Amino acid sequence: MVKVGIFGATGYAGYELVKAILRHPEAELVFASSTSYAGQRYKDVYPCPYDLPLIAPEEAPLEQVDVAFLCTPHGASAPLAQRVLQAGAKCIDLSADFRLRDPAIYARWYREHPVPQLINEAVYGLTEIYRQQIAQARLVANPGCYPTGPLLALYPFLRKNLVRGEQIIIDAKSGVSGAGAKPSLKTHFVNVHDSFSAYNVGRSHRHVPEMEQELSRYGEQPRQVIFTPHLLPISRGILSTIYVSLDPSWNQEQLLDLWHETYAGEPFIQILESGKLATLAHANYTNRCVLSLAPAGVEGRFILITAIDNLLKGASGQALQNMNVMFGLEETLGLVA
Amino acid sequence: MVKVGIFGATGYAGYELVKAILRHPEAELVFASSTSYAGQRYKDVYPCPYDLPLIAPEEAPLEQVDVAFLCTPHGASAPLAQRVLQAGAKCIDLSADFRLRDPAIYARWYREHPVPQLINEAVYGLTEIYRQQIAQARLVANPGCYPTGPLLALYPFLRKNLVRGEQIIIDAKSGVSGAGAKPSLKTHFVNVHDSFSAYNVGRSHRHVPEMEQELSRYGEQPRQVIFTPHLLPISRGILSTIYVSLDPSWNQEQLLDLWHETYAGEPFIQILESGKLATLAHANYTNRCVLSLAPAGVEGRFILITAIDNLLKGASGQALQNMNVMFGLEETLGLVA
Amino acid sequence: MVKVGIFGATGYAGYELVKAILRHPEAELVFASSTSYAGQRYKDVYPCPYDLPLIAPEEAPLEQVDVAFLCTPHGASAPLAQRVLQAGAKCIDLSADFRLRDPAIYARWYREHPVPQLINEAVYGLTEIYRQQIAQARLVANPGCYPTGPLLALYPFLRKNLVRGEQIIIDAKSGVSGAGAKPSLKTHFVNVHDSFSAYNVGRSHRHVPEMEQELSRYGEQPRQVIFTPHLLPISRGILSTIYVSLDPSWNQEQLLDLWHETYAGEPFIQILESGKLATLAHANYTNRCVLSLAPAGVEGRFILITAIDNLLKGASGQALQNMNVMFGLEETLGLVA
Amino acid sequence: MVKVGIFGATGYAGYELVKAILRHPEAELVFASSTSYAGQRYKDVYPCPYDLPLIAPEEAPLEQVDVAFLCTPHGASAPLAQRVLQAGAKCIDLSADFRLRDPAIYARWYREHPVPQLINEAVYGLTEIYRQQIAQARLVANPGCYPTGPLLALYPFLRKNLVRGEQIIIDAKSGVSGAGAKPSLKTHFVNVHDSFSAYNVGRSHRHVPEMEQELSRYGEQPRQVIFTPHLLPISRGILSTIYVSLDPSWNQEQLLDLWHETYAGEPFIQILESGKLATLAHANYTNRCVLSLAPAGVEGRFILITAIDNLLKGASGQALQNMNVMFGLEETLGLVA
Repeated sequence: MVKVGIFGATGYAGYELVKAILRHPEAELVFASSTSYAGQRYKDVYPCPYDLPLIAPEEAPLEQVDVAFLCTPHGASAPLAQRVLQAGAKCIDLSADFRLRDPAIYARWYREHPVPQLINEAVYGLTEIYRQQIAQARLVANPGCYPTGPLLALYPFLRKNLVRGEQIIIDAKSGVSGAGAKPSLKTHFVNVHDSFSAYNVGRSHRHVPEMEQELSRYGEQPRQVIFTPHLLPISRGILSTIYVSLDPSWNQEQLLDLWHETYAGEPFIQILESGKLATLAHANYTNRCVLSLAPAGVEGRFILITAIDNLLKGASGQALQNMNVMFGLEETLGLVA
Repeated sequence: MVKVGIFGATGYAGYELVKAILRHPEAELVFASSTSYAGQRYKDVYPCPYDLPLIAPEEAPLEQVDVAFLCTPHGASAPLAQRVLQAGAKCIDLSADFRLRDPAIYARWYREHPVPQLINEAVYGLTEIYRQQIAQARLVANPGCYPTGPLLALYPFLRKNLVRGEQIIIDAKSGVSGAGAKPSLKTHFVNVHDSFSAYNVGRSHRHVPEMEQELSRYGEQPRQVIFTPHLLPISRGILSTIYVSLDPSWNQEQLLDLWHETYAGEPFIQILESGKLATLAHANYTNRCVLSLAPAGVEGRFILITAIDNLLKGASGQALQNMNVMFGLEETLGLVA
Repeated sequence: MVKVGIFGATGYAGYELVKAILRHPEAELVFASSTSYAGQRYKDVYPCPYDLPLIAPEEAPLEQVDVAFLCTPHGASAPLAQRVLQAGAKCIDLSADFRLRDPAIYARWYREHPVPQLINEAVYGLTEIYRQQIAQARLVANPGCYPTGPLLALYPFLRKNLVRGEQIIIDAKSGVSGAGAKPSLKTHFVNVHDSFSAYNVGRSHRHVPEMEQELSRYGEQPRQVIFTPHLLPISRGILSTIYVSLDPSWNQEQLLDLWHETYAGEPFIQILESGKLATLAHANYTNRCVLSLAPAGVEGRFILITAIDNLLKGASGQALQNMNVMFGLEETLGLVA
Repeated sequence: MVKVGIFGATGYAGYELVKAILRHPEAELVFASSTSYAGQRYKDVYPCPYDLPLIAPEEAPLEQVDVAFLCTPHGASAPLAQRVLQAGAKCIDLSADFRLRDPAIYARWYREHPVPQLINEAVYGLTEIYRQQIAQARLVANPGCYPTGPLLALYPFLRKNLVRGEQIIIDAKSGVSGAGAKPSLKTHFVNVHDSFSAYNVGRSHRHVPEMEQELSRYGEQPRQVIFTPHLLPISRGILSTIYVSLDPSWNQEQLLDLWHETYAGEPFIQILESGKLATLAHANYTNRCVLSLAPAGVEGRFILITAIDNLLKGASGQALQNMNVMFGLEETLGLVA
């Protein structure tokens, strides 16, 4: 049994993780911490039957766990990660604190990095791409919700140098849980329901440097993304519509074949056949990343459509997948493939 | 032209009223005040094109208006009403401050009444029932959103003494705008969407004394309501399902006839024929109160179903209807019948 | 491994069952049949990765299964049940065909019963109440979605003869999946979304005789239900608000204690403490039945609120729970408790 | 009073038009026809109080109307248009039958044109661009729902030859009413709710030739659109996110100024200031087209975001706006500006 601690257990990612760990046949929840709800029971925070105590993060018995998940905000995660590693446990951080390899870029988008000495050790937790490093890692930086789908869709094409042009357009649409559990005008039901809106467009969202870092690593040249996140009037799921120019000598079936070849045997990658397009219904409540593509009607241009559940493959599901990898467990344990 | 001021213009009722007054052919908006947004433009608060200034309530030029609407919270409304009347204007209060005729009952549900000397003067603004008094009133207490539908449904039967038993069960379902524009865990999109819940059940909601006061006035005996409000995962509308025992010598068609007779010529009362049931789609985005009834399958018991748009007939629409009555205008002006 | 066949695998209950069986550690799916989609693959019908063949019901290899689930319409199920039993397998019928013990009542609400000789053998599959009979049964009649919650809420009080009066009012609200997968004006998105409506009110819904049969069996006197089903603009979940008069010498805590005592050790019954009310968020995507109650504000009257996921505890989840019981498996296998 | 007939009055566009005409101070509804519901009353088709007869299209008293609106499907509209014009009335066609100027292109996307001799006479009814021709027209081809927003957004930039590159990417998201009132698997509530999906991607949607025709006319070179329509889980509204390369010597403020200059005095064009983005909440339930733009973070590239209500500015509202123009009425009559 893997002994697990969860920091930030009362955000949406924390809730998904608590549920998943409690149902996981080879894991045991040792503690769940919450700054806002310390001292309360879990069932008083979410509509669930879990009569779990919530402790203050300072009181976390780190010496009793094999791994700690950090569902805490950026800035708060990094020092916690240090504590966890010093206590001898492994650490899976769901915040942005260890995703960016360059502390100067981190500083530009967030603030001065609180624990820069750990950045080099962290492995970017996109399981299908970095599985071997994750298996050896002490510290995993779980990917952002928006990057996960586009990176998995584009990786095979970048690695083969099929992508033409520097810019890739990613038009993404996310459910509201991506905005977090804290009430605000942005998440008020009446402001979201029956509406649809874009925000942080262009290259202004914090997931842009994360995507550009990774996309630039997979191939031989730097990449920029023009990124438009939108807010869907639903609770969960991210669908990304990606506009990309590819080597015009490759046709749709060859591109699909390349996806199949790259992801052969992957339990959480679902590649749709020609003529079908990924929808949120394919991905929600599972840990799958669903990939589809179609010709754009102009030679060499393609539309890739990818769907994930932002709380699972885009957060807690992938984090648990990484835990399974790190502890040599079957990768699908506790997850819906 | 009726010159209009709106206090509390940036809540949901205020927004509906601003839109309606700006489209009203015989009314002119003189000022809109907001405690939270004073100094800003209206179009910066709501997604609309209105380049209106929002002023602090203290700066309201009351001497320039014929009528002021109070879309302010209970407790804040009563002193404002006093200011408005002293300035010589009429006042339509959308809060609960003047709905309850007995200051002791007000005190039990809210707190000590701030301006008890005005209570007697206030007319309860259920237009179809109190039209004549409203036409003469200086101060109108606009009804609560939940009471409006059930009171209109039950009034004809109570007046004829057809209702048997002391208790009436009202199972009501409201859209989220009824909970107000302030962000809270209760109104967070993710907590409401795809869920459905009851709150303040039994006789614990503040609209219970308002309903009991009115129901007890329409007939010859006191009435109690067993009231269960529920929160629907939609923005607007209230549907009330009412369980009532009626004089068993009256059948469905006779009851419908009594409704038709009572509400003959009413532009905002829509009575559905036998076999049809009111839905929110009948009422939303209109000022209509839609009435329907069906036998309960047990002798003498009936199910009444009534629908309104909580922001219109349940708040700002009825307030405007009252203004039209108070100023001798055509009652449907600025409203959807 | 329990070998399983599913008839009617492409309705909503069928889809949930396919997913659950494929994830069940001790069950194996032998066949899935569909009249409408025979010859196609499962993944072409629903957005899922299951590359399963769908066969015509006539071609079902009944000799290879231990149990068959019938997710087929009433009328079609009964003859299939006969075939299944004759082939030596057990049968769990999710239709209404074997729920009513009196063929005359069945005939009044449906039509002449096609296989009346099997009615007596069928066990009503409300697991918590009939577990022992289910364990021995060849043929289980899985309860309707609406009856499940109210029956579980009322059973302890009826058995103790605490319920006063003949009628019980059940105001129920269901997600749209309860209306089935077939497109119709009733299930068109635009007609449902942002609306809310009642249908088949009073004692006219087909689940009324089922509820009245069961409620009358649990205590010492016959019961009638006044039942108002409503359609919620969401996909899944049923919340029932029940108005009942109880022995006035029992208070809220004693009633809660009786629930706890009756359902001690039940993995799928969640009883909320005093002051909390069941919501759909408690029950959806689980096999739980969530129970809560509150005083109605009038002596001896109570409001019981119960929530289930209509596709799980209200259909396929309970069917699987019954399968676990029938085959001596751990009752929670393949289900979310 | 303009005397109005409506063909196809029981689709969604027809319903909006019926409501708008009944509230229009200078128009009178003479007839409403419906193939599916002929012989019924309007209030039996939609949840409204309109006790209007629905007649068969063959029985339409064309000699009594000044204008007929065709809310009928493509193919059915063209012969009706001929009948209307022959009877001496004007005609506003909401179908695709007269939008494409080249009958060969019409034939490729639809079928052989049934009344090609009328194509030349038809004026494309994008009011802000073709107002003068509309004022003189006997036959107006009302624009498609998807083209309206992007054409209005791009027109000023194309006319000034600011657009670089042949292709323009339009990522559009529409509410379900755009799919029509006929029940289908695509519009079943459970299939749409909580999901999000693309369809007819690339250059395969029938609105592509309409957009390319118009975009190519506004400037000096032909244009292609890469178009991805998506289905939003809401009833109404279209938000289009447009990716375009513009003359890099123009900055955001200059582009906004050009919009303001082009659309000065337009009652239905709302241009958002720098930093704000159009949302569906800006446009729904109004006849406005809301325009906004932001830099894409790459020199010379911009993201334009435009919102309309697909049933109003994208269909019936614009049709009524055109009627007002054709009959010399105030352009905003009967519409929400």
